[in-house]
This record gives sequence, structure tokens and C-alpha cells, in this order.
Amino acid sequence: MNLRMVSLLIGKILLIELITLAPPTAISLYYHEAAAVKAFVVTMILLALTGFSLCCARPKVKAFYAAEGFVVTALSWLVISFFGAVPFYLSGAITNPVDAFFEVVSGFTTTGASILSDVEALPMGLLYWRSFTHWLGGMGVLVFLLAIISFGGGGGYSLHLLRAESPGPNVGKIMPKLRQSAMMLYIIYIALSVIEVLLLLVGGMPLFDSLCTMFGTAGTGGFSVKNASMAAYPSAYLQNVVTVFMALFGINFSVFFLLLTRDFSQVLRDEELRCYLGIMTVSVVLIATNIYSLYNSWGKAFHHAAFQVSSIMTTTGFATADFNLWPEFSRTILILLMFIGASAGSTGGGMKVSRLIICLKSAAKEISRMLHPKAVRVIRMNQKALDTRVVRGVNVFMTIYFFTAALSFLLISLDNFGMITNFTAVVSCLNNIGPGLEFVGPTGNFALFSNFSKLVLSADMLLGRLEFFPLLILFGPSTWRRKKQPKIR
Amino acid sequence: MNLRMVSLLIGKILLIELITLAPPTAISLYYHEAAAVKAFVVTMILLALTGFSLCCARPKVKAFYAAEGFVVTALSWLVISFFGAVPFYLSGAITNPVDAFFEVVSGFTTTGASILSDVEALPMGLLYWRSFTHWLGGMGVLVFLLAIISFGGGGGYSLHLLRAESPGPNVGKIMPKLRQSAMMLYIIYIALSVIEVLLLLVGGMPLFDSLCTMFGTAGTGGFSVKNASMAAYPSAYLQNVVTVFMALFGINFSVFFLLLTRDFSQVLRDEELRCYLGIMTVSVVLIATNIYSLYNSWGKAFHHAAFQVSSIMTTTGFATADFNLWPEFSRTILILLMFIGASAGSTGGGMKVSRLIICLKSAAKEISRMLHPKAVRVIRMNQKALDTRVVRGVNVFMTIYFFTAALSFLLISLDNFGMITNFTAVVSCLNNIGPGLEFVGPTGNFALFSNFSKLVLSADMLLGRLEFFPLLILFGPSTWRRKKQPKIR
Repeated sequence: MNLRMVSLLIGKILLIELITLAPPTAISLYYHEAAAVKAFVVTMILLALTGFSLCCARPKVKAFYAAEGFVVTALSWLVISFFGAVPFYLSGAITNPVDAFFEVVSGFTTTGASILSDVEALPMGLLYWRSFTHWLGGMGVLVFLLAIISFGGGGGYSLHLLRAESPGPNVGKIMPKLRQSAMMLYIIYIALSVIEVLLLLVGGMPLFDSLCTMFGTAGTGGFSVKNASMAAYPSAYLQNVVTVFMALFGINFSVFFLLLTRDFSQVLRDEELRCYLGIMTVSVVLIATNIYSLYNSWGKAFHHAAFQVSSIMTTTGFATADFNLWPEFSRTILILLMFIGASAGSTGGGMKVSRLIICLKSAAKEISRMLHPKAVRVIRMNQKALDTRVVRGVNVFMTIYFFTAALSFLLISLDNFGMITNFTAVVSCLNNIGPGLEFVGPTGNFALFSNFSKLVLSADMLLGRLEFFPLLILFGPSTWRRKKQPKIR
Repeated sequence: MNLRMVSLLIGKILLIELITLAPPTAISLYYHEAAAVKAFVVTMILLALTGFSLCCARPKVKAFYAAEGFVVTALSWLVISFFGAVPFYLSGAITNPVDAFFEVVSGFTTTGASILSDVEALPMGLLYWRSFTHWLGGMGVLVFLLAIISFGGGGGYSLHLLRAESPGPNVGKIMPKLRQSAMMLYIIYIALSVIEVLLLLVGGMPLFDSLCTMFGTAGTGGFSVKNASMAAYPSAYLQNVVTVFMALFGINFSVFFLLLTRDFSQVLRDEELRCYLGIMTVSVVLIATNIYSLYNSWGKAFHHAAFQVSSIMTTTGFATADFNLWPEFSRTILILLMFIGASAGSTGGGMKVSRLIICLKSAAKEISRMLHPKAVRVIRMNQKALDTRVVRGVNVFMTIYFFTAALSFLLISLDNFGMITNFTAVVSCLNNIGPGLEFVGPTGNFALFSNFSKLVLSADMLLGRLEFFPLLILFGPSTWRRKKQPKIR
């Protein structure tokens, strides 16, 4: 383990976090929120001290392998969440440090699960910081890559980080040069963000709300500055803008890149995109039909169905209606969408549509192999044969996913809440969604859980966001084992 | 598709079913149950007519491949369930034909889920037949093999049937000759059954009850002749005998074979056995500690915990206590045990402990491969390297398992019952357990569901028992597609 290199990179990342605290501090200054300003300044001093001391490490060797990549990834998400929680605690806005940590992990992992019952009581600066963590976390991938590339010039080790960070099974080098690809994705992310803010402003949403709503949409996070979430803005136009942008941020970003290069035929043939939009459409139609009797208007039924489906499938978690009160069939569709999640290479969470496709294709292949043992069949995706390592990686992902879910479900059941609350809390955190059902439904929150359960759920959010491997490797014994010296006889 | 061969085999199996109807008919005669006797006789005539006509098929070729094996397996389970349900319907004991089908599928698949609220009202002959289907179904594997072997002399096609029928990933040829292995397993099954009946008789249970309780235990089914299930026999001795025998019938039968050949060291090293007993022990201790306050006696807490853990993990489904009322932690452990299930090569259902082990090992291997891409690691089980095809088969099994569960969960949610009822009903049927939680808990039953949901759940029971592949292949298009004639230009 090249500890000096790890230390240097973590230090750099903390200094970036320091800079991202400037806007919320400015907002708190503007609104004369003395306690919040003080808390932000103290946090920035702590970040500066820790960041610069870590950066003092002078790596003797530049060697940087997969293990280092995974460790930097996992550690950095832990430390930025830790420091990000400090302002909430120091300002007195959240009195329990575990709650503050949970809230910020939920922000950076773009989950949107909250322990706050009254978000509107928060100082404006903290409210901004809370939403801003979504935006930062949502493209943590790129922030990371850019930090590393700007530091080291995009050497061989960036690839290791890319592998550790990128959401979804197939990253796909969309441009030959890594730095350029990262920049391109970053530009697309910012462009979409700006367009959404403009559209929200046009609809009459205040600037502060527009920015924070955009942060929640772009990161597919779901923190809102209103207690009623998106239901606080009754304008159908505003809700529809958010519906569309949630769906857009759940699409693999390489699709936008293909659109920019006018490669429309490849976009149309993209299997994941077609499947993603197909599942969304079918779900909206089924739910709208199922909830029609509640609203007595096809317009309203489709409006709410589309918003909730887009919100849940992209793992954002905004709400316009309390779907906890919907009929069982609609609730069940939403639960299943929670598992599926968004597309690979998007800011969304969950298992990812592409994993679903790969799983189904490999099952079909195996059944056909049973009938025709000698036939050779290759699993294809977008007309290209899939490397067997990708298929194996997907299978192992699923295994770890279900084992993590089962273990968390068991651990939080010690709090003795109902099974639906526990089950959907785990599913919601592991897939980075936000709300679940019953006590943790759209109108509830996670405050009721014990500190132990909150830490378990925080771990789930981090594991889900980083897709397990970096964190498992960080805590794996072989990562830290010293290499054995060859025996001398 | 060699349809004549398929027809001949299905005919043979129906004639075997005809013979198995003799004991319940005799019982109904003895108890002067006129309606039941009439129903049994009509069913036997129907079976004779159908069976003999199917046996008229004279196969031109003896060719019998995997596809035929899967088709015979799937079809035979469907037709024996269909004919097995006729006596219940004709005698008027169950008025809805879908209910009768559900009940018998539940019997043959050794699930034990019932639509009856008052089993004690059934005629004795039908009560016996209901439990007897468990015993027949539990070792359907062997009944099948013997039927085929006695017909054809154990040719090459038996291997295909073995592959389609055997529960669990690794059959393992425990004796070189297939016929001998089947006979040996059959003898072990009968010996264990006889010992259990004797032990129950010693404890003062009536002969009829002892036989039926043994049928439910041996097949890991769970139908009882009492409404209160095993709680109707308050004797701790009787309940403990059943606890032990449920656990025994959940062990891989090759372990008993090894014990008979006095190969103790291999038994002790058997990873699945150790894991199976380990999970059971830990679960009993955790639940007993958790429910202690309900019983205020460590003896009672351990007694009930052991019975329920053994019953659920082996997918039997007998009950001595209404675990629906236990604390959430205990309920969650039981839910997780439902998924795990018993050992491969036992009469139990579920995912099987060996699949769990293989999944975890392949996940560990993949993580280690990420850190050391060049290292070669082989997955071992009982000191032997596992064929990659087995690992792949397990992964595909898991995929189909979760997709089937998700789809069924969605379909039965149309009945608009609670999520826990729906979820545990699917889990219970797919893993061939019997009871679930809430409405389908130990004191409830499946009568409340619509006919559509009952058919979905019946399909789940069959899919779970046959481990998906035979039924999926039966309904797959390529199985029935005629081979294309080569084009003549």
C-alpha cells in the first residue's frame, strides 16, 4: 500500500471540499446566520489544517495500483462525509452527531434520506450545503477524476480510480483520452444543470429553490428545501420539468455525448436506453391506471404516476404525492423500480438497467446451453460481445448486493419496527433513493431509528453508491497485510 | 422432441400414481366415507384410462436428450398434481377446483401451503392422501428415477432425468451405478421414515397421526392432520422428535450414505453440512434469546426456537407457536432462513446452503481478483475444485429466482392485500415452505387469494421444487420448434 500517495490524494480532496464550502458560507453571511457562519468557518479551518498536513506527504514512488485506487475512493467518501457533517453539528442545527453524519452521507451518496422532520427550520446556508452535497456527490466520479488528473496529469493510475468510481458495469471509453472524457461528461452535467435552473426560473420558482431543486435532480438525490418536497410547488409545469430532468439524469451520460456528436443511430440502438425508457413507460401506464380512481382524472393520474416513477427509478426520491397511500399494486411496482434503478454511467443508483439486461441474457444463455450443450452462444450488448469478466462481475455484484441487504435488514430489525419500514429503509438506502414506505415513506423520515441502525444505513448508502467493491476492499484484511518476505534458507 | 417416448413415460408415471391411491382408498373404505371412496375410484379409473392410452405409444427411436428429460419432468409434475386434485373436488371436500389444484400442488411440491381453514373436517382418506403427496413428492427424484430405470434398465437418458430432477447444484454420483444410488437413497429415505413413525408411536401419538406427521416431515412438506399443526401435540417429546427429523431430512442424503459406509472423516469435513448446522445453531440461539421474555423460561424459548428454525430452514412449515407474534428480529431471521433453505440433495427446498456457499466464495474470489488481476484462484468445495459451469449455473439460478419472485410479488399484489402477506406468500411458495407471515402466517391460510393469485403461487411452488429449468424449458419456444429442413437451392 502506497500510503504517502493515498495521503496526498485524500489531502487534495479535502482542500476541494474546503472550496465547495465557500458558497454556503457566503449565503449564511448574506442572511446573517451567525451560528452557521461560525460553524462553516471552523469547518474550513479544520479542512485546511487536515488537508495541508496530508498533502505534506511526499510519495517516494508513484506506484498506484487497484488497491490504492479503491482505498482512496472509499476513504475519501468517508472523510468528506465526516467533515461535511461538522457544520450541521457545530451550528446546533442537528444535535446528534450520528444524525449529522447520516444526513451528509445521504447527501454525498445522493440518497436523500433525511433525519429532519422540519427542513424549513434550517439556516439558509446549511440548507444550501445539504442540497449542494447531492450535486457534488452525483458526479463525484468526475470531480474525483478531475482532481486526480489535474494533479498527476492523467497517468496510468487514473484508470484504477475510474474502475473504482464509475457507477455501472460498463464504463466504456467514450473518448480515447481519459481527461478529455471526464471533462466532456463534466460539461454535459453542468449544461443540463444550467438548463434545468433556467426552466425552473421561467416557471416562477425562486432562484434559491431552483438551485437547490436542480442540485437534488442532477445528483438524483432528492433533498428538498421544502417539507412537502415537490408538492410544495403545485405548478404542474414545475413538477413536469423536474420529472423530465430526473429521467434525463438517469440516462447513461455517454448517450448525451453520442447526441452531441450527432451519432443518432447508435443512440437509437442503445439497449440500455431503450430498456430504461420502456420500463419507465410501462410503469407509468400501469400505475396511472391503478391510481385513476384516487384522482378521477387521467391527467392527474398520469402526472403523479410519471413524477413518482421518474423519481423512484432514477433513485432521486422527490415526491408530489404520498405513494404510501396508493394501492398495493402501485406500491409494489415502485418497490421493484427501487431495485432496478437508473442506467449505468448516470448519477442514479440501484442495480442499474444494464445489469438487469446482462443477468437476463446470461440466464437465457444458460437455459439454451442446457438444451444444446455443444452450441456456443455469446452474450451481446449493443451488438458487441460482452467480456465474460463483465458477466461474472455482474453476478458477483448481485450476490454482494443481496447479502448486504439481508444483513442490514436483520441488523435494523433489532429496533423492532415493522417489516415494511425496515425492508424499504434498507432498499432505499442501498439503492440511494431516499424515501421508503410506512414510517420512512415520503411524509416520514429516518429519525426514529437508533444510532446503531443509522450507522448501518449510512454504510448501506456508501456501499450502494460505491457499488460495494471499494469499501469491501478498504476493510479487507489482504489490503493491509504486509507482503511476506521471501524466506531465506 | 421424441413425443412417443415422453408419452410412454408420462403414462408410466400416471400408473404409479394410480397405485399410490390405493392406501387412501382403503382408509376411506374402512371409515365408511362413501363420497371419498367414490371420488377415489373415479380418479383411479381416469388414471388407468389415461395411463394405459399414453403407454400405447411405441417409440420408434429410443433417443432421449436433455430437452425430453426436462419436458417429462415438468409435465409429470403438472399431470400428477392435476389428477391428484380430482378426489378433493369430486368428493366435495374442496368445492373450488383451483383450490383443489393449489392444495395438491402444495402437497407434491412438499410446500404445505393450504387453502383449508379446517383440515380436521376432511374425510380420513383425503387427509391421508393430502399428507401422502408430501412423502411421494419429497423423494419424487427417486420415484422418478426408479420408474424410469425399472422401465428402461438405466440407459443414458436417466442421466438427463437426474439432471432435471435432482434438487441442488451438485448431485454427485455417490455410487457408480445410477440405479444402485437411487435404490440406496430410497432405502435411506424409507428407513428414516420408519424410525420416525416408531419414535412418534412410542411418544403416544396415534398411528394415523404418526404416519401423516412422518409424511410431512420426510417430504419437508408440513401438512398436518390437526388445525393447530404440531401445537396440537403438547408433548415436548413428540415436538422434539419432529424437530430432529425435520433437521435430518434437510441434510444432503449423500451424508447418510457416507455414514453407512463409515466414512466419518468425509462427513466431518463436509462444508455444506457444517454450514447448515452452523446457521441452524446460531439462529436458534439468537431467536431463543430474543423471545425469552415471551416465555420466561430458557427451556421453552429454546424448545420453540429450535422447532421453528428447523421447520422453516428445512422448508417444512410445521408450527408449535405463532411466530407471527414474535419480535421483529426473530421474524426477520425466519424470513432470511426461508430464502436459504435446506441442503442440496435433501428433500428440502429453498436456495440451498451449498448455493449460498458457492455464491459467497465466488464473490470473495472476484474481490481478490480485482486486487490481484494476475493471480489464479479456484473455487473449492470440500477440497475439490468446482467446475466453472456449476458456479455459472448457481448465478443463473439466483437470477431466475429473484426475477420469478419479483414477478409473482407484482402479480399477486393485484389482490390488494398487505405487502408482508404478499411478499411472504411468494417466498413461502417459491421456497416450498408453507406458512408465511400476517394473513398467511402459521394460523392463517391461502384461501383469501383470488384464483389468479392461487395459480401464480401454484406455478411458484412448481418452479421452486423443480428449480426452474424444467418448467422454463417446457414453455420455451425453442423446445417445440421444428428443426428447419436444410434449404435446397
